[in-house]
Amino acid sequence: MLKFSYENSGITQNELVAYFESVSNAHKALHGKTGAGNEFTGWVDLPSNYDREECERIRQTAEIIRGNSDVLLVCGIGGSYLGARAGIEFLKGNFHNHKQGVQVYFIGNNLSPDYLGDLLDYVRDKRISVCVVSKSGTTLEPAAAFRFARELMESKYGKTEAAERIYAITDREKGALKKLADASGYATFAVPDDIGGRYSVLTAVGLLPLAVAGADIAQILEGAQTAAENFSDENVLNNMCYQYAAIRNILLGRGKNIEILAGFEPSLRFFAEWWKQLFGESEGKNHKGIFPASVEFSTDLHSLGQYIQDGTRNIFETVLKIGSPNREMVIPSNSKDGDGLDFLDGKNMSFVNEMARQGTVQAHEAGGVPNLLVEIPKRDENSFGQLVYFFEKACAISGYLLGVNPFDQPGVEEYKKKMYALLKSKNPVL
Amino acid sequence: MLKFSYENSGITQNELVAYFESVSNAHKALHGKTGAGNEFTGWVDLPSNYDREECERIRQTAEIIRGNSDVLLVCGIGGSYLGARAGIEFLKGNFHNHKQGVQVYFIGNNLSPDYLGDLLDYVRDKRISVCVVSKSGTTLEPAAAFRFARELMESKYGKTEAAERIYAITDREKGALKKLADASGYATFAVPDDIGGRYSVLTAVGLLPLAVAGADIAQILEGAQTAAENFSDENVLNNMCYQYAAIRNILLGRGKNIEILAGFEPSLRFFAEWWKQLFGESEGKNHKGIFPASVEFSTDLHSLGQYIQDGTRNIFETVLKIGSPNREMVIPSNSKDGDGLDFLDGKNMSFVNEMARQGTVQAHEAGGVPNLLVEIPKRDENSFGQLVYFFEKACAISGYLLGVNPFDQPGVEEYKKKMYALLKSKNPVL
Repeated sequence: MLKFSYENSGITQNELVAYFESVSNAHKALHGKTGAGNEFTGWVDLPSNYDREECERIRQTAEIIRGNSDVLLVCGIGGSYLGARAGIEFLKGNFHNHKQGVQVYFIGNNLSPDYLGDLLDYVRDKRISVCVVSKSGTTLEPAAAFRFARELMESKYGKTEAAERIYAITDREKGALKKLADASGYATFAVPDDIGGRYSVLTAVGLLPLAVAGADIAQILEGAQTAAENFSDENVLNNMCYQYAAIRNILLGRGKNIEILAGFEPSLRFFAEWWKQLFGESEGKNHKGIFPASVEFSTDLHSLGQYIQDGTRNIFETVLKIGSPNREMVIPSNSKDGDGLDFLDGKNMSFVNEMARQGTVQAHEAGGVPNLLVEIPKRDENSFGQLVYFFEKACAISGYLLGVNPFDQPGVEEYKKKMYALLKSKNPVL
Repeated sequence: MLKFSYENSGITQNELVAYFESVSNAHKALHGKTGAGNEFTGWVDLPSNYDREECERIRQTAEIIRGNSDVLLVCGIGGSYLGARAGIEFLKGNFHNHKQGVQVYFIGNNLSPDYLGDLLDYVRDKRISVCVVSKSGTTLEPAAAFRFARELMESKYGKTEAAERIYAITDREKGALKKLADASGYATFAVPDDIGGRYSVLTAVGLLPLAVAGADIAQILEGAQTAAENFSDENVLNNMCYQYAAIRNILLGRGKNIEILAGFEPSLRFFAEWWKQLFGESEGKNHKGIFPASVEFSTDLHSLGQYIQDGTRNIFETVLKIGSPNREMVIPSNSKDGDGLDFLDGKNMSFVNEMARQGTVQAHEAGGVPNLLVEIPKRDENSFGQLVYFFEKACAISGYLLGVNPFDQPGVEEYKKKMYALLKSKNPVL
């Protein structure tokens, strides 16, 4: 079961009591759908009322892809990219594409010809399926990449078989991609109208790629449902998820305007990227918000560790603890060669990793960095579902406490407008 | 040639003039070796006075490894990890391990049994060489991983052949790894005494893995030498590198305490990690420093982009522009299918990427984010050498301007002390 604690944060329960009413109001606004952005709160009840039929279709489709493909190309950006990638690496590790099963690669999340070209060269001669994810179908990055992917598929398989190997996750009824999919005969899955991109990982957007990668998606949804039940009490003193939301705001009030999500597993890298989008895009508006950053420990203890220990004191840290590893490695003895670390002989690496975690928290707390802890038993489907829901709900409540609409992203349009103007201009400057 | 400009930063030349004397003093302290940490400034003149003989030996060794290995495992952490990885991905792209040539993987930079176990399973049956990088040989993470690597090599090849396939980059004379290497017959390369970890990428630490990955290391050093010459004028008005250093401090004085390094190529991810270590570890001390963060655009325009555009206004942005891509991809026409992006038909992706860059800078500047620009012609060896030297020197000068020793990292010891105490304790709590 996911647990949150704040023992090493310097925050007292009394300070939380002061948030009793505002949290309760935020809870009511979220569940009563009366708050800002309430048209995008479909994710709140998703774990209990998701479309079972579509979910079954996702599973069946994943089985087909696992049977007829070596590679799945997932074409999407932002929320149509990070959730699936976060989940796959979280569950299957950094080297998931080196293991048995379908390799999953991501395109359409950047505009680099080197990236796309190198990847297409690599997969060209393999058996490929494509999953294109876009609510509208007109987002530039995935639309451009999908033109390449479609061309590759049609030249490789012909139009008919290509259409059987292309899956569109898009609006249920309208939009360019839905139209193209229907005209071409691609199977489609829905991006619900009431769930924004960064909250969409528990819809087909995340679940189809996850299922193809071999994840048990029913378990993910069950984990999310467990979290939905566990974090449903409007009383901040009884709700760890709301405690996290309130404490973030308390710390921000003290000038801690950078939050660092710290994991001790490299397979959490894209989970951290997902988390950064969730919080950064939800709260970073109206010249407000906590800047979300992430580190991979112990790697980054030999990098940003110095700054965290002793740099500008405007940071706090949220540590992800994983109870047990997915595999164990016993450190071989090396005593007679004298690397000076005899105390490692015969120890489990996961034990050493956990001592590094504890030592780090002690050191950073002593250095003046408030420490929060989110704890899950394992890197498994159930825990992933819990984590996703915990952070989604905490983010919504935190945004309401901050006084912003946590479900819009008006700033994302700014670069698009400028880019479109430049792309359409007669005299671009290179 | 590398160029730096600050047109979109809101900083005027007059403000730089005010830094004339302090920059000049910092320059003298650095070149005269009279400043704090002067015992670690060997990197300043490295591009002109590196050890040619050792460099030749690196090239020859790389040829041997390229002839007899499918995989090189590089075992190191911090500066013994990030520079090599940054360089290889910068030059060879995200999918370098999918291309012809030796695959290069990194171990010893974390304590995850899942990471190490999965990777060793993948490489076990391939032809392997190992490069272990540690000044002392007693840093816990690489020492622990090297025990596994050595066991694997000796059981696979026997002690004699294993010794021929293991290379140690370590202290020239002393330390646990040097002793072990000499006793076992590993070839060794030197980590110079006067160059700290995060400044070591142009020594064997970075150059051997880079050469194995197929990089032309002479060109890297030549690029660094070009930068050393171009950025040698003590007058801040004539030295772009010092302008960057001064402007960072001017912006910090205005409350911009987060710097975001923004690239438009996913292959810059680990270059950004290297940069984060360089600046974070050099300046993040005495409760001072700019927090270094990074983004990958356009990916993260659909994530942290919202925050950058409109969140708390304590950030500035340093954009890396790459003049031309390593390959070109022409976007296929899709007009009749109506993704609404007809203006993309037949355009080079790199052109669209550059318009995204220009649009982003315009949007962020309009949003109140000072923008700095570092520009290189291409992702090639020469540019990599220039970039490394530019940032190393800027970091040293910037640290001196800030009033810290940019060459120590006392805070890194804190977690180690706590971790060691926990590891040696009789009753660890799990």
